[in-house]
Amino acid sequence: MTSERAPRIAVGPERDPRFERAVVGGGGIPCDFEDTPDALVWTAGPDGFPEVLPSSVKWVQLPTAGVEYWLSQGIVRAHPGVTWTSAAGAYAAAVAEHALMLLLAGVRALPAHLAATSWTPEALAPAVGTLRGATVGLVGAGGVGRALIPMLATLGAHTLAVTRSGRPVPGAVETYPVERIDEIWSLADHFVISATATRDVERLVGASELAAMKPTAWVINVARGDLVDTDALVAALQTGAIGGAGLDVTEPQPLPDDHPLWTLPNAVITPHDSNPPPLRIPAYLEHVTENVTRFASGLVPTAVIDPSAGY
Amino acid sequence: MTSERAPRIAVGPERDPRFERAVVGGGGIPCDFEDTPDALVWTAGPDGFPEVLPSSVKWVQLPTAGVEYWLSQGIVRAHPGVTWTSAAGAYAAAVAEHALMLLLAGVRALPAHLAATSWTPEALAPAVGTLRGATVGLVGAGGVGRALIPMLATLGAHTLAVTRSGRPVPGAVETYPVERIDEIWSLADHFVISATATRDVERLVGASELAAMKPTAWVINVARGDLVDTDALVAALQTGAIGGAGLDVTEPQPLPDDHPLWTLPNAVITPHDSNPPPLRIPAYLEHVTENVTRFASGLVPTAVIDPSAGY
Repeated sequence: MTSERAPRIAVGPERDPRFERAVVGGGGIPCDFEDTPDALVWTAGPDGFPEVLPSSVKWVQLPTAGVEYWLSQGIVRAHPGVTWTSAAGAYAAAVAEHALMLLLAGVRALPAHLAATSWTPEALAPAVGTLRGATVGLVGAGGVGRALIPMLATLGAHTLAVTRSGRPVPGAVETYPVERIDEIWSLADHFVISATATRDVERLVGASELAAMKPTAWVINVARGDLVDTDALVAALQTGAIGGAGLDVTEPQPLPDDHPLWTLPNAVITPHDSNPPPLRIPAYLEHVTENVTRFASGLVPTAVIDPSAGY
Repeated sequence: MTSERAPRIAVGPERDPRFERAVVGGGGIPCDFEDTPDALVWTAGPDGFPEVLPSSVKWVQLPTAGVEYWLSQGIVRAHPGVTWTSAAGAYAAAVAEHALMLLLAGVRALPAHLAATSWTPEALAPAVGTLRGATVGLVGAGGVGRALIPMLATLGAHTLAVTRSGRPVPGAVETYPVERIDEIWSLADHFVISATATRDVERLVGASELAAMKPTAWVINVARGDLVDTDALVAALQTGAIGGAGLDVTEPQPLPDDHPLWTLPNAVITPHDSNPPPLRIPAYLEHVTENVTRFASGLVPTAVIDPSAGY
């Protein structure tokens, strides 16, 4: 494909007109799957994915940010010579907004306010904190983390980022490589876990990490439940070793009905709905338009899947 | 006083060392009240305020944003020739942060999440909204409103401002004069009432305004309880005419124990603690340093009180 000709792009499994408009918006021409498309924009899960792609297809766009299942089923590997992209980054702003909401609600003691049935500022006001001047430890600075940093900055909070490489993350006061992660637990006031979901990172936050935190610290996890030791977290919440936890992901997940996290007053659980279905489609449409624009211009689309890295 | 000499500044009613450090930070010299000060920084309420000020005093700094009581008691008027400043603006960031917290928690359905004791994304996720792409009607663009606009902007929300004059507010997509306020109720997705507390504005939000709003709209009030018709609001919350309300101020205030707002699932009440005591002192210290800096440089301090305007 050259930049001289508008690319022909099939939308599947069905020719959804919203996605065909997104293709047109990026400078592509919608076509049937059988009609020698240059690329395929997929809008559903892996189950109905075609076993054989037309040889004309050079690029496939998948609708999810995490692609573990597509990789483990061998779907990506079965089509050599094709560039695959995920929707990584497309939903980052929604998840970052959710993380900010959980953090603000925690720091400003919203759970205690919602439980009150009487005007008692003398009881509630001393628990109201602020992000202004606070330091937030951001574990993982992928799309979600990078979207969160400017949100924190306009609230007057400072970010300490932790990444694999430790290369400076724009907007962070300081960036630590993951080998130095232990330094942040006593340094930051609050924590947001937004590490990319890969299998080689586990249990970042356990009993000793929780013990190092300030007693007012809130821990927000929007990444993956097993990055936090749930039993150690429950103990820290029960004893007041930390301020609280806001969890969009848990281990086990789904969290069983009788789990103590449901009734702890300083735990806020959202059932992995930081990026719920009604918000996903508009965000994926934007991502499709952007990537079709890049493809039509001969550029590499964003969020290319690297099977060896697992995302 | 000229800019040649560092101003002598008394801190009262007591020589609080934190405030004397703030005076030094602004280039002033702390002194006793009896020792011909150029200015007085007051850290308490009006009750112990001196009836007679030394004739050397040219400026008095008061610790509150609202100064109705100081004005109604005639304290300001009793000292002609003195410049009086309030702490208006000093606490704006804290209140704006609180308004954002209430709005985000409402839009993302946090009250329903906190009430849940089971992992039910199918029930909760459809109620999760976003500020991304949403339009927020901001009624009043004083310190709090102006602090809120950039917070909304980094979340991808657009602001329609309503002010007395209608002069364009920086960062707002559009600014309406108060005479055209009726246009915003059906236009914006959510509302933040942050109007300056003066006595000549009343009942901005009543039954007809609530009826014009979208059924998903959240109304946040961090200004003054009587700007919203409480009975009409309760009715709108009970029938689902609007999405919900987040109230840091109420009418009546304090809200009585048996009031329906305490138990409505889409009402969030915080007992006027958006700017609680623990956050106030650091903010007032910053304000004192800034104003001493201005005074020492021969500039007019910020937040000069205008008795005829009432603030």
